[in-house]
Amino acid sequence: MYRTMTCITVLGAGMMGSALCVPLVDRGHEVRLVGTHLDGAIVKSLQESGVHPKLSYELPRGIRAYPVEELEQAMQGAEVIGVGVSSPGVRWAAEKLASYARRDVPISMITKGLEWGGAELALLPDVLRDGLGQPGIEPVAIAGPCIAGELARRVETCVVVTSRNPSAAERIAKLFSTPYYHLWPSADVAGVEACAALKNAYAMGMAFAQGLHEKSGGAPGSVAMHNYESAVFAQSVREMQRIVELLGGSPDSAVGMAGVGDLDVTCNGGRTGRFGRLLVLGLGRDEAVRRMQGATLECLDILAVMRKALPALESQGRLRDDELPLLRHMAEVALDDAPIDMPFSRFFG
Amino acid sequence: MYRTMTCITVLGAGMMGSALCVPLVDRGHEVRLVGTHLDGAIVKSLQESGVHPKLSYELPRGIRAYPVEELEQAMQGAEVIGVGVSSPGVRWAAEKLASYARRDVPISMITKGLEWGGAELALLPDVLRDGLGQPGIEPVAIAGPCIAGELARRVETCVVVTSRNPSAAERIAKLFSTPYYHLWPSADVAGVEACAALKNAYAMGMAFAQGLHEKSGGAPGSVAMHNYESAVFAQSVREMQRIVELLGGSPDSAVGMAGVGDLDVTCNGGRTGRFGRLLVLGLGRDEAVRRMQGATLECLDILAVMRKALPALESQGRLRDDELPLLRHMAEVALDDAPIDMPFSRFFG
Repeated sequence: MYRTMTCITVLGAGMMGSALCVPLVDRGHEVRLVGTHLDGAIVKSLQESGVHPKLSYELPRGIRAYPVEELEQAMQGAEVIGVGVSSPGVRWAAEKLASYARRDVPISMITKGLEWGGAELALLPDVLRDGLGQPGIEPVAIAGPCIAGELARRVETCVVVTSRNPSAAERIAKLFSTPYYHLWPSADVAGVEACAALKNAYAMGMAFAQGLHEKSGGAPGSVAMHNYESAVFAQSVREMQRIVELLGGSPDSAVGMAGVGDLDVTCNGGRTGRFGRLLVLGLGRDEAVRRMQGATLECLDILAVMRKALPALESQGRLRDDELPLLRHMAEVALDDAPIDMPFSRFFG
Repeated sequence: MYRTMTCITVLGAGMMGSALCVPLVDRGHEVRLVGTHLDGAIVKSLQESGVHPKLSYELPRGIRAYPVEELEQAMQGAEVIGVGVSSPGVRWAAEKLASYARRDVPISMITKGLEWGGAELALLPDVLRDGLGQPGIEPVAIAGPCIAGELARRVETCVVVTSRNPSAAERIAKLFSTPYYHLWPSADVAGVEACAALKNAYAMGMAFAQGLHEKSGGAPGSVAMHNYESAVFAQSVREMQRIVELLGGSPDSAVGMAGVGDLDVTCNGGRTGRFGRLLVLGLGRDEAVRRMQGATLECLDILAVMRKALPALESQGRLRDDELPLLRHMAEVALDDAPIDMPFSRFFG
């Protein structure tokens, strides 16, 4: 099984795109990692020392790094394409990859997010497919729970792969799996992708608990504001289920790895939680963002998308205005600088 | 609403029984807390200084503490009975309370657990009801997520109350609620109670991740073994849903406060996690228990119950032997001193 070598080219040398390359080389594939125009310093460092500066870790030398200018060379003979750009980069990636996309070359993506199209929420694999301009090529999305720094260090990791083309998802699961990287195919693209995007917002809300505890002078420990956090966790899963339902997905996906699993890992994973704790200090969004020193904050992206979507879904009669109280409150806090006042009494409605 | 004073007597002055008294006095009720024969030192301390030695916290003086010898006096005029004993004490509590049980005196309990009756798993509210010997009195069970030390400090807390007599559950929810203690009634006794019991075992399994990370010399941080933990979390919820189903409950309860919420809080709550981390060190169960210095370890109780139940459920044709791989592995580790080797490839089957 490990003898079949496949040539795989990943576009986007950020933390997750780069970490994904580790199981791929360990699996014996030929792996090429192409930085975007934002990844110049990363590519240079990988070429010189193998160290990924954002992961602060030396990657296996089998991963060959290319600058974006050498994309064509890196794509020669590629049998699988990986997309590792951030969510705002998906259309750019589609444009760059359009001329290489073929039905017999599966495209996998680790980019997560939702877009608001004016009347419907759009899933990123569909945005990528449409951007490629070749109907019939259905990307395979990989959803969490996965902290890039752990995957790069070969920590045991379980993820979900999903696609509107189920056999492509199964092929990717087989090609990418290693003894420490386990992939489970799912046919529920909407459910998996909605959870993968939404968990960033909900993890921010869970971090309010720790922030409030710290703000009140509390020390870390088993007595803190864990009860508060847990209620937010449970409500988060209910709300993710409701939004998945609105997207036509299965609420069951919110109970699996892409839902509860990814929510749990995101709460432990650093930047989203740190941002949530900064918001508690009442600095306002702009100052909180500034203190994050350029870290990608998917939680703000998804809250902005949902803020546009909610009134439209209500006027379409698909959502009541008393639903999703947690999401609405988080949007007020993160986007409007409203003070935190968790609406517990409206939970579990 | 806050003017109606009710006389409430709670039997069992451990951490959770005592913490429950805080919202009750804040709500304006007359609250009497009766220690068991194991709680002598606690009652003495409460009477002398108001400090609960296990909570390390001074409780409101409105809570009147009684030794078990004064149970009769403490029960005079009681309009609601609370049961705060540990799970092995439920039959004893039933015997003690039998003469005071009346249809117009609701009994609420915070004790959690399952019993194996030889052919079926039994729910503790049913064990208590049967022990009282008065059919028609259906206890109201309060399930998490709730760390006692936080409730005692009036940290925002959301819990579920459930009973085979739904109007009793609603009455308790109304009587006990305060601005920081929110109770939601549920009609799913089996689902809520199974999750309340099982979460202790699964939280232990989640703690293996942190233990393995520490054992390998890893420092706390956002890069640790969170991916491992999250996969265990997601599988835990699936397995709780499956067991709830076997008990005739609704798998939805595993997605709510009593399931994902309580699992999250238990992982943050101290002793279960500490025990899980000790098991990772390969000390063996007995040494790990010894190092816990007498802390109640519900995880061992529920694993022992499930170990008895599983073969019977299989021979009844209700469960396949490849189901619940995580629970089975945790039982081997915690009860048989087996080494930890998480069966990820058998997850999500």
